Amino acid sequence: MENVKLTEQLAEIIAGTGMVEAEPAFTIAKQGLLDFLSAAFKGGTQVETDRLLRYVSGTGRALLLGTEQGAAAELSALYNGYLGHYLDYDDVNQTVRGHPSTVLYPVLLALASLRPVTGTRFLTAYVIGAEVMARIAKALGTKHYLRGFHNTATTGVIGGAMAAGYLLQLDKGRMLNAMGIAAAQVSGIRLNFGTESKPLQAGLAAQKGVQAALLAEAGIAAGHRVLEGDQGLFALYGEGIREETKEILLGKWGRNWELCKSGLWFKLYPFCSGATHIADAARTLFQEGDFLPEEVQKVEIIFPPGGDAALIHRCPATGEEGRFSAEYVAAVGLNGLPYTLENFSAAPIPPGLLEFMQRIVRRYDGTVVPSKTALPPGRFVILRLHLQDGAVLERRTDTPKGSPGNPLTAEERYQKLSECCPNGLASELMPFVETLESESDLDPLVQLLKTKTR
Amino acid sequence: MENVKLTEQLAEIIAGTGMVEAEPAFTIAKQGLLDFLSAAFKGGTQVETDRLLRYVSGTGRALLLGTEQGAAAELSALYNGYLGHYLDYDDVNQTVRGHPSTVLYPVLLALASLRPVTGTRFLTAYVIGAEVMARIAKALGTKHYLRGFHNTATTGVIGGAMAAGYLLQLDKGRMLNAMGIAAAQVSGIRLNFGTESKPLQAGLAAQKGVQAALLAEAGIAAGHRVLEGDQGLFALYGEGIREETKEILLGKWGRNWELCKSGLWFKLYPFCSGATHIADAARTLFQEGDFLPEEVQKVEIIFPPGGDAALIHRCPATGEEGRFSAEYVAAVGLNGLPYTLENFSAAPIPPGLLEFMQRIVRRYDGTVVPSKTALPPGRFVILRLHLQDGAVLERRTDTPKGSPGNPLTAEERYQKLSECCPNGLASELMPFVETLESESDLDPLVQLLKTKTR
Repeated sequence: MENVKLTEQLAEIIAGTGMVEAEPAFTIAKQGLLDFLSAAFKGGTQVETDRLLRYVSGTGRALLLGTEQGAAAELSALYNGYLGHYLDYDDVNQTVRGHPSTVLYPVLLALASLRPVTGTRFLTAYVIGAEVMARIAKALGTKHYLRGFHNTATTGVIGGAMAAGYLLQLDKGRMLNAMGIAAAQVSGIRLNFGTESKPLQAGLAAQKGVQAALLAEAGIAAGHRVLEGDQGLFALYGEGIREETKEILLGKWGRNWELCKSGLWFKLYPFCSGATHIADAARTLFQEGDFLPEEVQKVEIIFPPGGDAALIHRCPATGEEGRFSAEYVAAVGLNGLPYTLENFSAAPIPPGLLEFMQRIVRRYDGTVVPSKTALPPGRFVILRLHLQDGAVLERRTDTPKGSPGNPLTAEERYQKLSECCPNGLASELMPFVETLESESDLDPLVQLLKTKTR
Repeated sequence: MENVKLTEQLAEIIAGTGMVEAEPAFTIAKQGLLDFLSAAFKGGTQVETDRLLRYVSGTGRALLLGTEQGAAAELSALYNGYLGHYLDYDDVNQTVRGHPSTVLYPVLLALASLRPVTGTRFLTAYVIGAEVMARIAKALGTKHYLRGFHNTATTGVIGGAMAAGYLLQLDKGRMLNAMGIAAAQVSGIRLNFGTESKPLQAGLAAQKGVQAALLAEAGIAAGHRVLEGDQGLFALYGEGIREETKEILLGKWGRNWELCKSGLWFKLYPFCSGATHIADAARTLFQEGDFLPEEVQKVEIIFPPGGDAALIHRCPATGEEGRFSAEYVAAVGLNGLPYTLENFSAAPIPPGLLEFMQRIVRRYDGTVVPSKTALPPGRFVILRLHLQDGAVLERRTDTPKGSPGNPLTAEERYQKLSECCPNGLASELMPFVETLESESDLDPLVQLLKTKTR
């Protein structure tokens, strides 16, 4: 295993990736950019985000979304990443088991606001970043997340560094150093879910990614074997180097991008994607109108074993905690309340809903056969209502709305963009981003993104 | 275990720590400050450090040692931490199994250059930071380092955040948030040893520490159980919560500070402390003059099992890698070369030394009884020379020069300071630092520290 030189080979393959190779993924990359901007501009409408804005602004001239103020490159990435993930309204990739765009686009926008870059290089850098996040996540294995690491943050540091390195056109030696610096920054924990530190961790991953690439560009050296070996990344954070690790990291590079294979899941609701199945089922049940909330005696939410790992709050106190609560998301929908921001804020959950949540139990069933388009694969949710009169109502979701197997239409995506962006911005952004790969200069985009959020 | 609330208790005890003017730990803290400044100013004489200086400068007005330029608080901490550890010439604490001052003083100086702070608060914050680093290291257990984590960086993030939080006078709620943000930043790998990324990792820990405290001060919330529990810090990075964890973290707080118990080891040589025993033995053997280098047939370096874990380079190519090489450090001393910077630079190792290193083998002996003042406890090195005529020369070190059991004199410490600082600075620094606890304003110190390195 000593001779595998995984880190060196990965750095070399990334530095040498051609921009034409990445093209098939550009359509999804551009959808991801607009969806990221939707989530970030909507995030910026929350006054609480001013705390971080005040902290970063004035340190340099890199872009801060929704304002004319500027920051140092890494603090621009921190703020924009935090903003994009603030409402948990940004895209998800199931192989990453996390949120690629809210790390990668802040990395790339920070640099694109400081250096000249073409649309093609910008998009290729994104495709590479998403690919690295997905491959690193796969190579770390499923236990990484289950143990308590936050994949968006941990894989985002490496993916962010590689995306930044590609945008900066680092040669393979410097790309390798960027990987070494990034591997030493891998962190992020799920115990911060349900607090502002979750979006912060996305921003911090972006910060570290930009910083690793810029430090490598400046000539800082690092170890060359940081992935492999018995003290490497996979040993420390995953299940070690397995037989398939080399193939996972290097196999078929550029032939079938992860973005095309597993795609991006664009959210309709501002909360954890792990609760989307529940929301789809609850909304449909309520719309069918066969019950009143007070007639519900008991609600069962049935998952495959482990399918509720991200939903850490069983008794949330606030709507913010409720973003990670199966019980709260079910209660909101079954009471006919909308899945809007107001119901997922820092305000306390009203007593009526708290009482309703007492009637909800989680169950696990390993015998249900999931759909082939299930997302994540193997996932389903069955929402089963027991009414006081003995009637049982049931609804099952395998492929939630917005996920690649049940995608939003172009109209729905544009509607999300329009609803989230400041007045009129959506119609200006759309045409520029649609032809992004033929733009030789991203400055007009950067200028648009300074449009005031509030 | 659910009810232990370790994180909350630790944050509360830290926020509530009182300041005592005649604190015995202040004497060591002040020695640590002068030694850190020695190492950092000497580090700043290396032109390579300008790469990082260019990267950070102009982002704000926090102190950058040895220059009038300024940086944002976290980038000031990054640069000064990197500088302090650049030559591996800075202090060591054996409980931390790493370098406390090069993380903590950059954290505190960044803040002290931006906010008014008294000498007593500054020193108390340092004592707390060192205490936290040591207790976190102990609670993580010895496997943490052996697996490949870099204790200076990993424990430094938490210690740095707590030191910064104390300086900023965070209340217990914000201190708890600072702990949560910091716990999500714990990283740093030993595979980067022997490259510039080792000092970078010290600086990055300082950066993260400052940032965690400032973000908490700004009102960012985090999880309240980040240490305990089956997804907490000790589960992810250590051996989980053990029976003794609570006592390790909270027991006898403030009654016998770690700085007084295990002390600081001030280095005479600019390389990894793990090689100091070898250097002491090699230098003495050479000075005794009973052999010529060409008469040496074979050299055995005998460690207790695992005692050479930090010395990762068996065949270093450069003096820089040689900082982590038992073979190189032995070869330098046994050939009568001085342990000066010139011999630990990025230049290739001369062929004569490379050839000599071929004659050196490492051995391990678990039966040797170490001295009671051994540092680290249980450590020893026996250097055994086999000459061509059959003679065997041997020298053993248990307690290396500079370590608490064999400390530098005040004169030796002042000599190090004078040799490292720009002309005349040592004599200006010394009286100010000696009475630091009675200073109401640290600005005169901050101004002195802008004295040009070169």
